[in-house]
Amino acid sequence: MDGRPVRLGIAGLGRAFSLMLPTFLADQRVHLVAACDPREGARVQFAKDFEAAVYEDIEGLAADPNVDAIYIASPHQFHALHTRVAASRGKHILVEKPMALTIAECDDMVATCDAANVHLIVGHCHSFDTPYLQTRKIIESGEVGSVKMIQALNFTDFLYRPRRPEELNTEEGGGVIFSQAAHQVDVVRLLAGSRVDRVRAILGAWDPSRPTEGAYTALLWFDDGIFASLTYSGYAHFDSDEWCDWIGEMGSTKSADGYGAARRRLRAVHGAEEEARLKAAATYGGRDYVPPKSNDRLANLPAHQHFGPVVVACQHGDLRPTPRGILIYGDDKIERRDLTPPGVPRFEVIDELVDAVLHNKRPIHDGPWARATLEVCLALLQSGREHRDVTLSRQVGLAR
Amino acid sequence: MDGRPVRLGIAGLGRAFSLMLPTFLADQRVHLVAACDPREGARVQFAKDFEAAVYEDIEGLAADPNVDAIYIASPHQFHALHTRVAASRGKHILVEKPMALTIAECDDMVATCDAANVHLIVGHCHSFDTPYLQTRKIIESGEVGSVKMIQALNFTDFLYRPRRPEELNTEEGGGVIFSQAAHQVDVVRLLAGSRVDRVRAILGAWDPSRPTEGAYTALLWFDDGIFASLTYSGYAHFDSDEWCDWIGEMGSTKSADGYGAARRRLRAVHGAEEEARLKAAATYGGRDYVPPKSNDRLANLPAHQHFGPVVVACQHGDLRPTPRGILIYGDDKIERRDLTPPGVPRFEVIDELVDAVLHNKRPIHDGPWARATLEVCLALLQSGREHRDVTLSRQVGLAR
Repeated sequence: MDGRPVRLGIAGLGRAFSLMLPTFLADQRVHLVAACDPREGARVQFAKDFEAAVYEDIEGLAADPNVDAIYIASPHQFHALHTRVAASRGKHILVEKPMALTIAECDDMVATCDAANVHLIVGHCHSFDTPYLQTRKIIESGEVGSVKMIQALNFTDFLYRPRRPEELNTEEGGGVIFSQAAHQVDVVRLLAGSRVDRVRAILGAWDPSRPTEGAYTALLWFDDGIFASLTYSGYAHFDSDEWCDWIGEMGSTKSADGYGAARRRLRAVHGAEEEARLKAAATYGGRDYVPPKSNDRLANLPAHQHFGPVVVACQHGDLRPTPRGILIYGDDKIERRDLTPPGVPRFEVIDELVDAVLHNKRPIHDGPWARATLEVCLALLQSGREHRDVTLSRQVGLAR
Repeated sequence: MDGRPVRLGIAGLGRAFSLMLPTFLADQRVHLVAACDPREGARVQFAKDFEAAVYEDIEGLAADPNVDAIYIASPHQFHALHTRVAASRGKHILVEKPMALTIAECDDMVATCDAANVHLIVGHCHSFDTPYLQTRKIIESGEVGSVKMIQALNFTDFLYRPRRPEELNTEEGGGVIFSQAAHQVDVVRLLAGSRVDRVRAILGAWDPSRPTEGAYTALLWFDDGIFASLTYSGYAHFDSDEWCDWIGEMGSTKSADGYGAARRRLRAVHGAEEEARLKAAATYGGRDYVPPKSNDRLANLPAHQHFGPVVVACQHGDLRPTPRGILIYGDDKIERRDLTPPGVPRFEVIDELVDAVLHNKRPIHDGPWARATLEVCLALLQSGREHRDVTLSRQVGLAR
């Protein structure tokens, strides 16, 4: 470890924070020094767990002189406002995906951070996962020739996990486009490396009791002739982790015992309020909250995180990033580049954070990058609703 | 076995015939009584193997009074003409896929067979495979609700198998659209059951030494809100049979030893003529022809034929037709409906042939059905070339 740790403040102690907490606990390069949340229970818990300052709102947190950077993990619709407040007080920003809900918000966030001379990183997103980053390195090495076609798919029970009402309302950032396409599009863009020219999508919304998009399939055209097919179902019964060595999205081994659990749990819940309470109870500071496992356990994660099966067809070989390694199907032989399991989950996010905050290095997942992914996501919605291609204008590639 | 066998004549003793021969040898419901082929070697071999009449051309074969039905397995561009000749002599028709190269040819074939009062069956096509037919039956039973989204993909080395020059020229029916989309589209149409409304496709042609489409990805919209994503790569190094229990397209167990064999063989070949000779030598009557294995061996096929991984997302469950059985992922549990391995490969084709010829039962895979698949294939080409949706007009669903 080089240099001092990054002193991080947390804006929003909800589900996204719960998912990043194992990383913050295990990665010594970051210290949690403050947080804000409207829920008193969460503030009390955080103050106790980290002997840290707590605030009711982002203004208080942003004014804390002990904070280098703020992780904005508030609900999607607050990302832009919270970024503006934090950046205006000179804090570097790590904001959860999706970056925001509109391109205008993204523009504001990029401009605000530029003006304040602070870095803006958008994540965690699965395009941070080592298997994809390393696959991109293999592509850039030239050993399998240029990328031609990418196939990405993911079948999950996303729509049947406990949700707050706005998570089932597309206009408020709900549904699989904002939450899940944001991952899949980012992964595919990273692997392609170039700019998306246009998209065509079909949206699936086939459960009236969960009135948002739960599935999609889409075609993406890239600038240099690369094309991609993306499919996602959050209604799925088939679990495509079967095609990822039965490693789940978070890098843990999956057991067949859990089959149907999300739907079973949901059937026992009566009404949207009870469902929202169920979700709140299980998040940080809630009644049923289970703290992350100890560092020992984390260091034994069997594999990397991932976002479903991906095949990258190149001129002289196909690449399959998998949670345990990268399969290189060449003209003559298959080679498997094993990846050491991560000592810390999502350490790649801290890599970019430390590089930006302490070494002033521009992150891959910066504002213009993430804005381009949001533009694709919004275009998926527009294409599906208007039954036509949508051409893009705010795209960036990897080499800028 | 009920009734007498169907007396079958063969028009064209090439690769398609070689692939059907194990079926004809093993299925007692059909007798091979005559054949035509321009190659003398093939005629001599056939006369010897089957003590059967042989002819130089379709006219001779069609005039043979001993023939009930003719299997037209000549190159694609002759399907329409050969059907016309055979039907005009009152023979029932089993014609290989693709049905023809144009819709006008299909119209002529349908009209000719209607006028002659003979049945027209198009196949073999993988939509005959029992796993797909049985999956369709499960859908029709209603036990998993209505079909919503279908995902079909297939990664093969199709483009690197030995080819005649016209098989690498799209205008002459070459490339993966005519030969491989014809399978995949037919399978997806069978599973959806309804009419395709429009298609959008991207074509991949990324090997100048094999100047035709070797890959595609496409979206299909069906009449009743069902949609589908289809992807095929014939340039593949990754073999998607890995996701079909390592059972190959023909129902046999696959070994990892064969990796890269098609490309290796092709590298040893110099020029298109040598390649065409290599292909001819390995087909029926050729120098390197290997006869099909004995019936004993055939009866021990481990599994059914297939055309790559398919997931059918339905309202209350996902269905996965696989070579050994159908996986039904329901709301509460996974059920596997095992399928008895086929005693005779492609017996399903003989089922439809016998039903049509001996019992006057209209086949599923009749002219209008297959014309609709060709219309989709032609639309894939048009959509990819013109960068736009193509709306369809000659579609039929399953229930007519």
